[in-house]
Amino acid sequence: MISVEAALEIILNEIKPLGMERINILSSLGRVLGEDISASTDNPPWDNSAMDGYALRAIDTKTASKDKPITLKVIEDLPAGYTAKKTIKKGEAIRIMTGAPMPKGADAVLMVEDTEKSEVGSKKPAPERIYRGSEVKIFREAKLGDNIRKAGEDFRKGDIVLTKGISIRPAEIGMLAAVGKPVIYVHQRPKVAVLSTGDELVEIDETPTDGKIRNSNSYAIAAQVKTCGAIPVQLGIARDNKKDLREKLEFGLTADCIVSSGGVSVGDFDFVKDVLKEMGSEMKFWKVAMKPGKPLAFGVIGGKPAFGLPGNPISSMVAFEQFTMPAILKMMGKREVFKRVFNALLTKPIKKKPGRVHFVRAALEQKNGQFYAAPLEGQGSGILSSMVKANCLIILPEDAKDIEKDSKVKVQMLDQGFLYQDKPGY
Amino acid sequence: MISVEAALEIILNEIKPLGMERINILSSLGRVLGEDISASTDNPPWDNSAMDGYALRAIDTKTASKDKPITLKVIEDLPAGYTAKKTIKKGEAIRIMTGAPMPKGADAVLMVEDTEKSEVGSKKPAPERIYRGSEVKIFREAKLGDNIRKAGEDFRKGDIVLTKGISIRPAEIGMLAAVGKPVIYVHQRPKVAVLSTGDELVEIDETPTDGKIRNSNSYAIAAQVKTCGAIPVQLGIARDNKKDLREKLEFGLTADCIVSSGGVSVGDFDFVKDVLKEMGSEMKFWKVAMKPGKPLAFGVIGGKPAFGLPGNPISSMVAFEQFTMPAILKMMGKREVFKRVFNALLTKPIKKKPGRVHFVRAALEQKNGQFYAAPLEGQGSGILSSMVKANCLIILPEDAKDIEKDSKVKVQMLDQGFLYQDKPGY
Repeated sequence: MISVEAALEIILNEIKPLGMERINILSSLGRVLGEDISASTDNPPWDNSAMDGYALRAIDTKTASKDKPITLKVIEDLPAGYTAKKTIKKGEAIRIMTGAPMPKGADAVLMVEDTEKSEVGSKKPAPERIYRGSEVKIFREAKLGDNIRKAGEDFRKGDIVLTKGISIRPAEIGMLAAVGKPVIYVHQRPKVAVLSTGDELVEIDETPTDGKIRNSNSYAIAAQVKTCGAIPVQLGIARDNKKDLREKLEFGLTADCIVSSGGVSVGDFDFVKDVLKEMGSEMKFWKVAMKPGKPLAFGVIGGKPAFGLPGNPISSMVAFEQFTMPAILKMMGKREVFKRVFNALLTKPIKKKPGRVHFVRAALEQKNGQFYAAPLEGQGSGILSSMVKANCLIILPEDAKDIEKDSKVKVQMLDQGFLYQDKPGY
Repeated sequence: MISVEAALEIILNEIKPLGMERINILSSLGRVLGEDISASTDNPPWDNSAMDGYALRAIDTKTASKDKPITLKVIEDLPAGYTAKKTIKKGEAIRIMTGAPMPKGADAVLMVEDTEKSEVGSKKPAPERIYRGSEVKIFREAKLGDNIRKAGEDFRKGDIVLTKGISIRPAEIGMLAAVGKPVIYVHQRPKVAVLSTGDELVEIDETPTDGKIRNSNSYAIAAQVKTCGAIPVQLGIARDNKKDLREKLEFGLTADCIVSSGGVSVGDFDFVKDVLKEMGSEMKFWKVAMKPGKPLAFGVIGGKPAFGLPGNPISSMVAFEQFTMPAILKMMGKREVFKRVFNALLTKPIKKKPGRVHFVRAALEQKNGQFYAAPLEGQGSGILSSMVKANCLIILPEDAKDIEKDSKVKVQMLDQGFLYQDKPGY
């Protein structure tokens, strides 16, 4: 029996990130960037107004107040997207919109709320709606540089704005758009073949009889593959005979990774191993010191990593989460491939013998900012109903014994559901 | 100026979940279940073995030990997927695989490790590989019911195993497969039209000149729409004239929701409002007491919610996250539509005046199980580079003033990245 960490190390040593492909940035959400992205211009490209208001010379507003306003001559109306035609001289101002380049001669912007509402320009489409002369009352002193966004304050020409290896979120897509990169290199998504084995299985649209059950594992595992951002390919059910198993496994060789469930416990052990050996795999079969999920097979067939997960539904899901998910994420080029571990307080005692890491299905809650983990009823490796109720796994270390209520335990979130709540949190 | 919560309440009161559609369960990941799912049979359907081992009568193993084993006659070899042909009588056992139905007469299973390895069955394909007679040495007393999974211990015929309104994760897909539901009702995904407004914008594959910038907002917002699980439709750029704005907004009426950015600050206010009024919208324009993101327009055009987000990149992303995302999630049928708020300690002081909720881009870290939030440099509403570095928003309440280092602050995670880490956490 080897430890979870030892198994994980052996697995990840065999995994390499997949190569690159060029895709549209809007399709790149969740993918890993395959190139450094540098800026070809400053951003903003020029000093510009942070407000709707008046571009002016700060010195001209000295002593201005609500009671003693100063009046300036408005010489132009400058919408965003245009540059001022005129240069501001003493006693002059230009009506300016947020984002418009600062006019020559101006060194500050006063927001419109600190002025007396002047014309907002004619209703004709720009650029015709250039201002045709008016005045503005200034109720406040402007300081040098007020409400000016400096050229390059976000980033400078030549700066690496996104580095190879980061995961792409909406902010990164915004940045790629801002620097004019509609198409980028990202790591490819692995295609993952999913196979269930066993004469006891029938397809999910069939009615099981006579000792048979439905092939639910393939669906749960294919869904797990999707949550990683990879592409599942469902190979269906391989029957417990060499010919069928070999045929189905060969179908899987078009994928980047093969995941089977069932057939790896003591009983059918030799049988699956034989077929894999015939196919040229250096297969490592282990008992891993964990519960659920003890029997695990891992090997490399034709250069493709192959996972033989246990057949019990929860065992296979937990083993996928601990071993296959990090491998898939690494193939996708991700750097952070392990589920983060958070601290929580245990709401009731758990019985445990030392010797294996236990993954306990639990309901995570937050009260006054503190996490509480409530172990669920029904921890058997076939009990799907508790997996449905769970939003986290409590991780009890290999050497831990019985754990008391209120103990600090480690938890992994099963999904991103805990990032949302049913009331605003302000 | 109205509060964030008041704006949110007005918005969500206008939003109804979309209707149902029937889809394949593997396509249902992240969707919201539209029907209660009940079980048509018990699960497991019959008592079955939790282990590979021997089904036997517990009474026959009394006093068995490593030193004084008891020998039983093995009368059959029972793989999973088949039912035993024989009934166990005194002194007899049946070799049984995990998941196989319990044979008649047996009341316990002893795991194979507590026996002396007997034949594993011939290598012929099942069902031919029925055991042809052998013996097994028993090294341990079995207790009544040992290693038997009882029929119905997961769920019973008629039980509601999944309730309407839950979000579908891999566990739910496994459950749907297990109860034989290949196709289910889920809430439809909203189609969300995304529009940018402004003469200052050029498309992202063009080179901006003369006061122009690239239309990055549409891409960031479309990506945000995708992270909600909804379908973005990019309408492109509407120029600052009534005709173009109206035409583009009308294209958006085929969607379930319209999101525009820009054109809602003081300057162009009347202009956009005019067009929307002409189109029959009861448009609410607000200043919301938040930073960034102050100017926000919301209304209903032809029954479709329409959001006018601010034009600054970070303002529009933050306003989307606080207002549009909950609306989209509600349309999708979700119950938990608000970002959860976590507690963190502030790593350095933040200056703030009372009057608005501040959303501060920050880097969240975890040390010894405690969250720390480090505010990032560059909090201007146009600074994309700090949004790229951020993985959370610190939320400073409306009435808060300057906040000291080590203060407890609230944070919302920007994405699910924080659920992963770069080392195993066992």
